[in-house]
Amino acid sequence: MSVTAPSGFVASGVACGIKGDGALDLALVATEDGGAVPAAGVFTSNRAAAAPVEVSRAHLASSGGLASAVVVSSGNANAATGEQGVADAEKICTLAAGGLGATPSQVLLCQTGLIGIPLPMNQIESGIGPLLESRAVGEGAARLAAEAMMTTDTVRKEIVVPGPGFVVGGMAKGAAMLSPHMVPPQGVAHATMLAVLTTDARCDPRELVSSLASAVDSSFNRMTVDGCTSTNDTVLVLASGASATTPEPADLRAALEEACSVLAEMMAADAEGGTKVVKVTVNGAVSVDEAHKAARKVAESSLVKCSLNGEDPYWGRVMSELGSSGVAFEPPRVRIAYGGIIVCDGGVASPHDEKALREYMKQSSLEISCDLGLGHATAMITTCDLGYGYIDENRTTS
Amino acid sequence: MSVTAPSGFVASGVACGIKGDGALDLALVATEDGGAVPAAGVFTSNRAAAAPVEVSRAHLASSGGLASAVVVSSGNANAATGEQGVADAEKICTLAAGGLGATPSQVLLCQTGLIGIPLPMNQIESGIGPLLESRAVGEGAARLAAEAMMTTDTVRKEIVVPGPGFVVGGMAKGAAMLSPHMVPPQGVAHATMLAVLTTDARCDPRELVSSLASAVDSSFNRMTVDGCTSTNDTVLVLASGASATTPEPADLRAALEEACSVLAEMMAADAEGGTKVVKVTVNGAVSVDEAHKAARKVAESSLVKCSLNGEDPYWGRVMSELGSSGVAFEPPRVRIAYGGIIVCDGGVASPHDEKALREYMKQSSLEISCDLGLGHATAMITTCDLGYGYIDENRTTS
Repeated sequence: MSVTAPSGFVASGVACGIKGDGALDLALVATEDGGAVPAAGVFTSNRAAAAPVEVSRAHLASSGGLASAVVVSSGNANAATGEQGVADAEKICTLAAGGLGATPSQVLLCQTGLIGIPLPMNQIESGIGPLLESRAVGEGAARLAAEAMMTTDTVRKEIVVPGPGFVVGGMAKGAAMLSPHMVPPQGVAHATMLAVLTTDARCDPRELVSSLASAVDSSFNRMTVDGCTSTNDTVLVLASGASATTPEPADLRAALEEACSVLAEMMAADAEGGTKVVKVTVNGAVSVDEAHKAARKVAESSLVKCSLNGEDPYWGRVMSELGSSGVAFEPPRVRIAYGGIIVCDGGVASPHDEKALREYMKQSSLEISCDLGLGHATAMITTCDLGYGYIDENRTTS
Repeated sequence: MSVTAPSGFVASGVACGIKGDGALDLALVATEDGGAVPAAGVFTSNRAAAAPVEVSRAHLASSGGLASAVVVSSGNANAATGEQGVADAEKICTLAAGGLGATPSQVLLCQTGLIGIPLPMNQIESGIGPLLESRAVGEGAARLAAEAMMTTDTVRKEIVVPGPGFVVGGMAKGAAMLSPHMVPPQGVAHATMLAVLTTDARCDPRELVSSLASAVDSSFNRMTVDGCTSTNDTVLVLASGASATTPEPADLRAALEEACSVLAEMMAADAEGGTKVVKVTVNGAVSVDEAHKAARKVAESSLVKCSLNGEDPYWGRVMSELGSSGVAFEPPRVRIAYGGIIVCDGGVASPHDEKALREYMKQSSLEISCDLGLGHATAMITTCDLGYGYIDENRTTS
């Protein structure tokens, strides 16, 4: 179960031919009766934002934060497609709205795939009918939707989080071009990652957008695979209100954050060519911003990521990245540990159990923690190693 | 010929045992008579700067910009080695100064290799004698010095540039952890790249440092292999004055810039795992800073670099990196070309000769040019592709 776990939602997934291999590529999440409900979104901060990002932002603004449905397509990002791309995105919303009895501005759109190629509208138009007709409440329908949003993902990414009196469900995709910096329409955020969340909680659109922004900021925006911020990153949430529970804001935020965090972790675990999920923590920074900046520099370092692929605890590279991250830094105060095993103290090598460390490095989930020794601020960024598979996946698009 | 091409310099290179495999690892460039001459340096902006960087900076400051020699060692970076590292670096300078009849502050030091490991001082101390004894004017001696500074470099990097009435010579190393941001001691600069330049021009130390800073800023600081700024990046120049020519400042600068540019290009061509040298130009930016920022974002993109490795002109990734670089950006104004073949115009795909483009992508030297269409500022960054070899080289240090 994922997006249909909260009451009031249906889903579907079909193959319409965007992908050449006949795989599922068109998904729908909609309210059960087609009525508009409170909705919110956060979107990429990339200034080359794709047409579906522009259109979804505009729809949320003009509807006042109400939506009936989200259409998701994969295989073509509809990015760098100019005015035609926007017109195509609008047409998809209009077609779906027609079938749902909604207005076009109540339909949101997420797209992912190759950049710079006009959408194959014939295929998509022919797929909208079957997509709407097959929408259903069950687990199977939600699974088809989650599968239809995948590109290079090797596993479906689905989550259900129970809150007090309500439920949050979600599905997501993302394996590379993955360094989400998403922001609310008024605000700021990075990856192509897409996530569609649903909840049966009752809440107003304003509360929903602030809860979502907060949840995304501490989850997707704290995860990086390759430092490449996509043109299409989007997280959307629809709240049916079907549970009749109006949650405390903190409870809603906590449930959304839990859902986003689990989905973000699934992305890091499924990263192209990645064999390890790695949490880089920076403590003792002079500000949270500096802690984040330093952690991100380490997490995005090709050299650090190659070492992790080779299971080599070469902390010298971590030290070098911290030093070049631009934050306040005094080498004699620095301590670095892998899985709690201190390898560098006072800025120099520290004696440690090398055998235990070698064993630790074999794990699929690793923690690097860096204490700058200057302040009390802390931040964590989740990343992965860099292996051959990433190159294989990204050498050619054909 | 390289560092001994200008009159007044000797060089040598020996194997002292820092490297386990018996390869050359200790080099010297010195004035012929051991006398101090005008000298200048620019150093990494990494705040985890290695001991040799700290020591060379301090020596140039206390000598007032005079030096008799540069000692270079490879295999151990003497970085993250604390006070002991600084003491070791000072000792090397003192030993060399003793043999040359110079004062310790007139000896500069460059080191490269693994971070976080104490220097094998026994080996280095035993090597200083043979290093000094074998110093000589000839081409062979310069070649040994250039070889002794190599780490993962596969070729020696040497250059001679004739100026009007004077000569500039140089040798360098660098293949990864290569994104130099070097600055003069008072100022700011990235890589482990090391370069030692010599000239027989007459000039004062102040002119030399400003000419060097300018030359480095438009060469090494415009080249990136992996976005990782080393703890050890250093460029040094010594001016013997033996030509008796006092060049126009512009002539000296031009010759230094030519030498640095050729050496930087050699580094990009010898980058670990790289198969292509790629020049990324951004035109039409609103400021030179923004042009640089955008060009660097494209040049450091793992996704763009994988495409280049696969000879795939996937311009959508270039567009995405430009859009997420943080500079002023309006998609409808953007034009992107590979080798002059326009693939994107007005922010969307542009019809082009696909066969000609496929042929172009096979070349070992490529140009990507991006016009933002917003202003008149331009900048160029040299980079390389990302292939298996980079991962092979950096998975493990043993």
